[in-house]
Amino acid sequence: MSRTGVWLIGARGSVATTAIIGASAVRAGAAPPTGCTAELPDFAGAAVPGLGDLVFGGHDIVDTPLVKRAEQLVHAGVVPAALPRLVAADLEAAEAEIRPADRDAGTAGHQVHAIARIVEDLQAFRARNDLREIVVLNVSSTEPPCEPHPAHESLAALDAALAGPDPVLPASSLYAYAAFRADCGFVDFTPSTGARLPALDELARETGRPYAGRDGKTGETLLRSVLAPMFAQRGLNVLAWSGTNLLGGGDGATLADPGAASSKNASKQRVLESNLGREVDGEVHIDYVPALGDWKTAWDHVLFEGFLGARMTLQLTWQGCDSALAAPLVLDLARFTAKACHDGVAGGVSELGFFFKDSVGDGAHDLATQYAALRDWATR
Amino acid sequence: MSRTGVWLIGARGSVATTAIIGASAVRAGAAPPTGCTAELPDFAGAAVPGLGDLVFGGHDIVDTPLVKRAEQLVHAGVVPAALPRLVAADLEAAEAEIRPADRDAGTAGHQVHAIARIVEDLQAFRARNDLREIVVLNVSSTEPPCEPHPAHESLAALDAALAGPDPVLPASSLYAYAAFRADCGFVDFTPSTGARLPALDELARETGRPYAGRDGKTGETLLRSVLAPMFAQRGLNVLAWSGTNLLGGGDGATLADPGAASSKNASKQRVLESNLGREVDGEVHIDYVPALGDWKTAWDHVLFEGFLGARMTLQLTWQGCDSALAAPLVLDLARFTAKACHDGVAGGVSELGFFFKDSVGDGAHDLATQYAALRDWATR
Amino acid sequence: MSRTGVWLIGARGSVATTAIIGASAVRAGAAPPTGCTAELPDFAGAAVPGLGDLVFGGHDIVDTPLVKRAEQLVHAGVVPAALPRLVAADLEAAEAEIRPADRDAGTAGHQVHAIARIVEDLQAFRARNDLREIVVLNVSSTEPPCEPHPAHESLAALDAALAGPDPVLPASSLYAYAAFRADCGFVDFTPSTGARLPALDELARETGRPYAGRDGKTGETLLRSVLAPMFAQRGLNVLAWSGTNLLGGGDGATLADPGAASSKNASKQRVLESNLGREVDGEVHIDYVPALGDWKTAWDHVLFEGFLGARMTLQLTWQGCDSALAAPLVLDLARFTAKACHDGVAGGVSELGFFFKDSVGDGAHDLATQYAALRDWATR
Amino acid sequence: MSRTGVWLIGARGSVATTAIIGASAVRAGAAPPTGCTAELPDFAGAAVPGLGDLVFGGHDIVDTPLVKRAEQLVHAGVVPAALPRLVAADLEAAEAEIRPADRDAGTAGHQVHAIARIVEDLQAFRARNDLREIVVLNVSSTEPPCEPHPAHESLAALDAALAGPDPVLPASSLYAYAAFRADCGFVDFTPSTGARLPALDELARETGRPYAGRDGKTGETLLRSVLAPMFAQRGLNVLAWSGTNLLGGGDGATLADPGAASSKNASKQRVLESNLGREVDGEVHIDYVPALGDWKTAWDHVLFEGFLGARMTLQLTWQGCDSALAAPLVLDLARFTAKACHDGVAGGVSELGFFFKDSVGDGAHDLATQYAALRDWATR
Repeated sequence: MSRTGVWLIGARGSVATTAIIGASAVRAGAAPPTGCTAELPDFAGAAVPGLGDLVFGGHDIVDTPLVKRAEQLVHAGVVPAALPRLVAADLEAAEAEIRPADRDAGTAGHQVHAIARIVEDLQAFRARNDLREIVVLNVSSTEPPCEPHPAHESLAALDAALAGPDPVLPASSLYAYAAFRADCGFVDFTPSTGARLPALDELARETGRPYAGRDGKTGETLLRSVLAPMFAQRGLNVLAWSGTNLLGGGDGATLADPGAASSKNASKQRVLESNLGREVDGEVHIDYVPALGDWKTAWDHVLFEGFLGARMTLQLTWQGCDSALAAPLVLDLARFTAKACHDGVAGGVSELGFFFKDSVGDGAHDLATQYAALRDWATR
Repeated sequence: MSRTGVWLIGARGSVATTAIIGASAVRAGAAPPTGCTAELPDFAGAAVPGLGDLVFGGHDIVDTPLVKRAEQLVHAGVVPAALPRLVAADLEAAEAEIRPADRDAGTAGHQVHAIARIVEDLQAFRARNDLREIVVLNVSSTEPPCEPHPAHESLAALDAALAGPDPVLPASSLYAYAAFRADCGFVDFTPSTGARLPALDELARETGRPYAGRDGKTGETLLRSVLAPMFAQRGLNVLAWSGTNLLGGGDGATLADPGAASSKNASKQRVLESNLGREVDGEVHIDYVPALGDWKTAWDHVLFEGFLGARMTLQLTWQGCDSALAAPLVLDLARFTAKACHDGVAGGVSELGFFFKDSVGDGAHDLATQYAALRDWATR
Repeated sequence: MSRTGVWLIGARGSVATTAIIGASAVRAGAAPPTGCTAELPDFAGAAVPGLGDLVFGGHDIVDTPLVKRAEQLVHAGVVPAALPRLVAADLEAAEAEIRPADRDAGTAGHQVHAIARIVEDLQAFRARNDLREIVVLNVSSTEPPCEPHPAHESLAALDAALAGPDPVLPASSLYAYAAFRADCGFVDFTPSTGARLPALDELARETGRPYAGRDGKTGETLLRSVLAPMFAQRGLNVLAWSGTNLLGGGDGATLADPGAASSKNASKQRVLESNLGREVDGEVHIDYVPALGDWKTAWDHVLFEGFLGARMTLQLTWQGCDSALAAPLVLDLARFTAKACHDGVAGGVSELGFFFKDSVGDGAHDLATQYAALRDWATR
Repeated sequence: MSRTGVWLIGARGSVATTAIIGASAVRAGAAPPTGCTAELPDFAGAAVPGLGDLVFGGHDIVDTPLVKRAEQLVHAGVVPAALPRLVAADLEAAEAEIRPADRDAGTAGHQVHAIARIVEDLQAFRARNDLREIVVLNVSSTEPPCEPHPAHESLAALDAALAGPDPVLPASSLYAYAAFRADCGFVDFTPSTGARLPALDELARETGRPYAGRDGKTGETLLRSVLAPMFAQRGLNVLAWSGTNLLGGGDGATLADPGAASSKNASKQRVLESNLGREVDGEVHIDYVPALGDWKTAWDHVLFEGFLGARMTLQLTWQGCDSALAAPLVLDLARFTAKACHDGVAGGVSELGFFFKDSVGDGAHDLATQYAALRDWATR
């Protein structure tokens, strides 16, 4: 397989930078591919591009150079001190492929122009690097839930509306639209709208492009996707599942906004409901704790009832580094979606549900079944 | 299917009494079958005896009446106050089927006589209740690991040794031997030796009897069997998995003995190793805390490494009622093993690995695969 | 000291009923006075009424008989099954002293009449039981913070306003007003307004009556009042202190209301600030989890910085029975406030700060100093 | 006050190196004195040497240069990357004052010679640096409990025995002996024997030298010293207090040895007993988890009984960096003991109990009283 493009929306953020550094470090033999599912023995036969075959680029609204961000990640304890120098050439190459994002793309009028610019950037990226496949991956800040609009329901209506003066798509969806038009795959690693509108699904199918998402499963929800099935399979009756998330970093600040948080919480609770087969009591809080930096802590409290009504509890605390958890998933997703592009998969790829809180399609919601589905699909 | 006998070794203990009360309460419509896997929709098609078709009996070395033990369980908060009166008739019926256990069966000479007495008790139980199948289930105290003995290696050697004056089998294995000779299935819910000797496996195959075990998975290990696969499937590198268990009740007192605890700890660590594919650092402690009564608390601390070496942790605390967790598994195992008896399965039933820390056979060690294997086997 | 009246606002609630049952059980020798500070050796010399010298009465808006509530508390695992029968006579005596509360006292016009009725009830209680001192204790549901009103600023303005048609005081404050007018002490065990208005303080001083409060310290805040000083005394820099409280029962339902919760959260954070000497990052959540019944769980996460900036954490989980934690404090407060009445203390009693999240006066906020202050005052 | 010598036994260890770096960094204005009690406003009037007035030296059996150890501490995340270079001159100055320790001092014969060498080193340190006071501080590995010996009972017997061929004192006690003979104060920051023998107490009094110890309180025990009093003051009945400690680093390796661990565990349980007034059920485990590096995690589980026998629990998890917790205490102890030297205090200084698990003298065991005692003594 030739080189594959990974176009990151939010290319200068912690997750993107960690992914770029990490891919380069693994290629250089300076770090093992810890956290990368595609590198497990189970996936030895999967026809996906190698970590060393990825070419990075992307959009961002900020302009902190990647090298600077890499230093910040060292300071934050995310990236080992020796790595940035070691991968400096790759960081510079990626730096040269980052374009300023249109800050007003999601709000300003005549969104057709914003889309055209993104398509152009993607085509130039392809041409410059002689890329067969490009995967556009959204790792930017979470948007609030998007307002329903009649133009979301069909591609024809959407195209008509986009030509008009009023904004009709949130930024994440503009990128999805552009990705499909530019012959790329699209992945939404955030809970934003992205490709999850009927009109965009229609476009993906029409252009023969795959998409996946949404909202990477990196902590509390990952745990829920193995623990909820355990309760269900043992016939234990979950009475309430409560959670508190303490987040620093940019994600914490964004999610301190109730609108953005509501997108996130909805996908967290969905995992419980799907696995337990019914709604379950319990709230989920997301608190912004700036001093945590790139780290996050999730506490879950599960109250359940056993035989003859005995009340019991499970508590868990997950303390993780957000970027270190997300970055290898981003690389996995880029590689698996490249395969979907290559194989001509059109529309949502439900086999990538292993990575998401709120997956496209009607796949299983327990991690074990999702893993098996991914393995079977990838190695078929 | 006609009525099925459940012969409990340790019939007056908390787990056995809770199981007897519960089966009766569910039959009477006074309690839902919470915690019973066999009652899940997935098992609607399984040809297993109903909870109401079970007839209880057993051996015990103590003589506290079941009714008295039921009161203690009410006092301990395990059984709702109203139940014992409601199921009094069933408790009395079970009471009438309990025989004193031979306290010296595992240590005294001429074990052939001890076996004969057990076989006799089982045959009388079958005759009195017109039972087609009987499952002998060991829920008595954990034994220390058994000393290797050449007679364990083949049935011929064992039979010769049993006729001699020296004890050659621990008590749990005498019961397994007797069970097979009396045409019963055998389940070891404890980490004791039970049927896990080549000579007894040979006997099971020769007599065409099934057995399962060992060591019911009711807390820390249950969690490990879903969490360890999660780390493995995500390519996360577990550096150390440490655990502390606080137990009251009889089990806590038994496991305060280092010999008995070593049986238990070995099966706990085996689950990690099987799922992670290698040995993992970390100790497991079992502390006897009498004031906990029938309750237990397990704390696990998992230190793991993610992308680029980031160190992260998962902690969990499981607070459960031991009898309420174990009793529905005992009922499930009686029913599934009855099916194996009925189907003529001979030898270890690896499909029952879902219930055990240290299962017979070479089945999977992750709960999800074990569940699927059980479901497929039971509903085939 | 002669018998002392304890007039409970919310006399039929869980806390009040547990306190009444407990005082009676301890008097009867059926239970030790666990949880009662006044019974510690340090307080051997304190001139407070004995637990057996308390006479209970009160107001409530519900009419569930105490005997019925006692059964519910047995069912909920708060009160041992044998106790209600044992203390039946005392429950009936208390039952006879409970009067219906005026549901509209805090909202209807002409509050002067509501006050008059309360005063009358208190005077009749005193006369019937020949009581020297009466302590009025508010253990009813938490009110939302009260709207500021000019009449709160002085007794003269308040008296004028009370005679008018508009409600000017919340219910808890009406009780405080009535208590002082009826020559009683007043204690607010909730975060409601109670006696915490300048006009009511003036009335307490003028009538020579003591008051204490507010918001009993029974879990998370109790822990904070010993842990925050520890961080301060060790010079450790607390960066964020976050908390989540899961509550069932009536209190949980009340505090699910953001208004009421805001009263509570404010007093929780105040304890941190007072002990750490500055504002600290971190939110406090109160979630209503009905299935928890009378039990509550608090999780606290403290992120702190040590020498050379090292980031460290403390987490704690407190799992307690709300009524069992609160009831002995209610008895302690009744007894200590009776002493204050007897000694002629007028106004807020800061020495009772040991019991409260948000104490009157300018006493210390760390538990150790509060304990010493209480002990010295009580045994002086 | 002129410059004060701090002679560290274990001068090349993590704690000592962190303390040396930190004192220098604070003096240079490159770090705040977080974690230093002596720097709190309460201690503004204390006549103790400034952090900048300390001169470091010591013994060690290893020869890793301080500069090298400083780099390791940066790598381990204990010390910020920029500091070692910044304080390089001070590290070199300390390096020049470190002498090789006699590996066999605690085991070989004729210990009088080992003592003489230590005394000589201390006197030379004093002369070279023109020091008025020197505090010898033991931060080396924990020793197993020392075998009782008749010569420990009086100074005369000890001096006679030291002249003989058989070893009679463990290494930590040789240092204490030498410290007193060389006119220094002595502090034992470990649970080793140190000055805690009647003969050494006699020597301290005879030479007019102060000593303090033992076993710095930096985590689990620190928490116990505020939480146990809380339970006691609230009359709550602690039924069992269990703990598990996960330690990496050198200390973890040492304490994996049951002998050394038993010294540690004894002092941990003593704090509970002293504060609760009786023995309490519950074990303490110390597990060596190499991957934790310089970090430690303590989990405590407290089962307690409240009013009418309600069972409740408190759990806590403390995750800290051992060196960052210990180093500021080492600096505090050096400064306060220097004051004791200067003031002519002879014998054990019970007012320094605030810092220790197992303090000399008959001071209080709750942190609040210990803090007040320290403050009053230091500012008197």
